[in-house]
Amino acid sequence: MHMDGSAGKQYLKEYIMRIKPFMEAFFSEAENNVVSMELGDISLDLVRNFRDSVTAGKGIRGALMNLTYKACGGSNTEEMLKTSSFIEIFHTAILVQDDFMDRDALRRGQKAIHKIYEDKAAELGIKVPADHYGNTLAVCMSDTGFYYSWKILMDSAFESDIKVAAGKLYADYISRLGLGQALDMTISGATKTTQNDALKVLYLKTVEYTAILPMLLGATFAGENDAKKLEAITEYAKCLGWAFQIQDDILGLYADEKELGKPVSSDIQEGKNTLLMIKFREIATPDQRSLQDNVLGNPDSAPADVEKLKNLLKDTGAYQHVLDLGYEYVRKGTQKINSITDDPQSRAILESLITYMMERTK
Amino acid sequence: MHMDGSAGKQYLKEYIMRIKPFMEAFFSEAENNVVSMELGDISLDLVRNFRDSVTAGKGIRGALMNLTYKACGGSNTEEMLKTSSFIEIFHTAILVQDDFMDRDALRRGQKAIHKIYEDKAAELGIKVPADHYGNTLAVCMSDTGFYYSWKILMDSAFESDIKVAAGKLYADYISRLGLGQALDMTISGATKTTQNDALKVLYLKTVEYTAILPMLLGATFAGENDAKKLEAITEYAKCLGWAFQIQDDILGLYADEKELGKPVSSDIQEGKNTLLMIKFREIATPDQRSLQDNVLGNPDSAPADVEKLKNLLKDTGAYQHVLDLGYEYVRKGTQKINSITDDPQSRAILESLITYMMERTK
Repeated sequence: MHMDGSAGKQYLKEYIMRIKPFMEAFFSEAENNVVSMELGDISLDLVRNFRDSVTAGKGIRGALMNLTYKACGGSNTEEMLKTSSFIEIFHTAILVQDDFMDRDALRRGQKAIHKIYEDKAAELGIKVPADHYGNTLAVCMSDTGFYYSWKILMDSAFESDIKVAAGKLYADYISRLGLGQALDMTISGATKTTQNDALKVLYLKTVEYTAILPMLLGATFAGENDAKKLEAITEYAKCLGWAFQIQDDILGLYADEKELGKPVSSDIQEGKNTLLMIKFREIATPDQRSLQDNVLGNPDSAPADVEKLKNLLKDTGAYQHVLDLGYEYVRKGTQKINSITDDPQSRAILESLITYMMERTK
Repeated sequence: MHMDGSAGKQYLKEYIMRIKPFMEAFFSEAENNVVSMELGDISLDLVRNFRDSVTAGKGIRGALMNLTYKACGGSNTEEMLKTSSFIEIFHTAILVQDDFMDRDALRRGQKAIHKIYEDKAAELGIKVPADHYGNTLAVCMSDTGFYYSWKILMDSAFESDIKVAAGKLYADYISRLGLGQALDMTISGATKTTQNDALKVLYLKTVEYTAILPMLLGATFAGENDAKKLEAITEYAKCLGWAFQIQDDILGLYADEKELGKPVSSDIQEGKNTLLMIKFREIATPDQRSLQDNVLGNPDSAPADVEKLKNLLKDTGAYQHVLDLGYEYVRKGTQKINSITDDPQSRAILESLITYMMERTK
C-alpha cells in the first residue's frame, strides 16, 4: 500500500476533537476560579482569549504523545488523552510569548494576545505605553499557561512516579527551550550568524520540543524503558521534527496567508534563520548574499526585494535542496517505525503522520 | 523574654549561607549544560547574570519553607534545604519579569537583566529596538528559571507522592499569581482602582506567594495533614505576609536607596497601589486626592510633588495607620504559633521572624 498523509492528518483532526471536552472543562473551571477568587475582569478576559487560542491549535504535540503512548502499549488511553492537553496548553502559552517577541500581530487567524491588550490600553486608561502594556499582559498569561500545564500534569491520574518522570523530562527540555529562544532573538537578522547557532535554534525549538519531548513523554506515561525502543522513538522524532521545520519554513514564505493564519513573509522581516536561508547563504553569490543581508530582519525592506529574495531561493536551488532534505527525513524516519512498535495501527499512523508533515498546507 | 527580630534576621542570613553551595552546584551544572549543548555564548552570559541575582536575594520564601518543615517535625533537613532552592530560583525569575514589566533598571543593587541586554543590543548588532531585545531576553531567562525550579523540585530526593503534592500547590498558587500580576499592571496608576482590586493584588503577590505558599510547601514536605495545624500555619503566614507587605510599602518610599538596592519612590512613579496609597485615598481631602492622582503612576511628576505626597502620607496619619496595622499583624500572627508547633526552637524563630518583618531595613 502506498502511504500518504491523509491518515496522519485525520489523526490530528480527531485528536483536536477528542481533547476539546477536556479543554472546555479545564477552562470552565479556570474561569470559575478567576471569578470566585475575584482576580479581576481583566484576568477573566485574558483567560478567555487564551482559551480561544488553545482550541485553534494543530495538536501535533499532544497527538504525538498519545500515539507514542499507544505504540508503547499504554492502555489508559482516556487518561493519556486528558493529560496530553498539558503540552497543548504549554504550547499556546509559548506562542503567546513568541508573538510578543517577534512582534507578530496575528496568530491562528486571530489577533495575538499582546495586540489585543495593546489595543485596549487606551480604553482601560493605562498610563504606560500601550505596546508595553500589551506585552506585559501577554507574558502574565503565558506564565499562567505554563503553570496551568503543570497543574494538569500534577493532577493527572497517572501514578506519582510516572508523573515525576514526565515532569523531569518536561522541565529539562523546556529550560533549554528558553535559552534556545534567547539565542534565536540574538541571531535573528544578524548577518554574522553561524550555521551552527542557526541549526541549534531550529533543533531546540522544533526537533526537541515539537517531536522528541512529546514522544518521549508518551513513552514515559506508558512506562517504556527499553533503551533500543527509546532510541528508535528519538530517531523517528528527530526526522519528523526536521520535516515539520522544513515545511514550516516553506509555508512561512510561500503559503496562502489566510490558511496559515499569520502573515506570510514575516519570517523574513523578523530575520529568522530558516533552513532555506541557511542553505541560500551557503550557495549564493556575493551579490545575492548582500541582498539577503539587506532584506533579512529588516521590517522596512521593499516588498519587491522580498519577492526578489523569494524568487532567488527557488532559482538558486536552495528551495529544492531543502525540499529534498525534507523528503529524505520522511524516508529515514519511516525506516525506524518497525523498531518502535509491532502494533499495525500505530505503525500506519506513524508512517502517515511523518508523510503529512511535508504535505500540510498550514 | 522580650522577643525582637534579631533571631529571625539571623535565621534568614544563615539560610542564605546554607543554600549557597547547592545554588553554586546547580548553576555550575546548568552552565556546563549550556556549554556542552552549545546553546550559545549569549545563553551562558544570561544564565551567569541570573545566577548572580539569585544569590543576592533575602531568602524569605526558602527560609519559611525550611522553618515550617522543621516545625511540622520534618527530619530530612538537608534534603529540605536543597529542595527549597527551587522557590528562590522561581522568585528570582519572577523578579526578572517584574523589572521588565515595571521598567525598573536596578535590582538588588545590580543592573536588571532586561537592562543589561538592552545596553548590549548595539554591540551585538541586534536589529530590533534595544529595549525590546532586552525585554525578550529577560522573559527567556525567566522562562528558563521557572523550569529550573521545576527541575529542582522533580529531581529532589523526597518521595514522588510528596513531590506531586508540592507540585500541585506550586502550580495552583503560581497560576493565580500570573493573573494577579495582570491585574496589577492594569490598575497601577489607574485613578479609578477599587480598593478590592488593589488589596487582591497585594494578597496574591505577597501574602499568598511570599508566605502561605512556602509555608504550606514546608508542611507538605513534612507530610503534615492535621487540618488545624495547617489552618494555624495559614493564619500565621497571612499575618506575616501582610506585615512583610506593609514594611515593603514603607521601605519603598522612605528607605535608604543604597541599602534597598532599587530606586526609592519608584513605587510612586509606577503607580503601585500600596496599602499606604489605599489608606490615603480613603482619608485624603479632595485636593490631596487630586495630588495623589497626578503623582501616582506619572513618571514625569516633579520631585517636589513626590516629596509633598510623601509628607502628606505622614501628616494625614495614613503612614501611622498602616504602621499600626503592621504591628497588629505581628501580634495576631504570634498568637498562632503555639498551635503550629511544640518545638521551642521553631516557636522562637517563628516569633522573631514575624517581628523582623516590620524591623527590616531592606
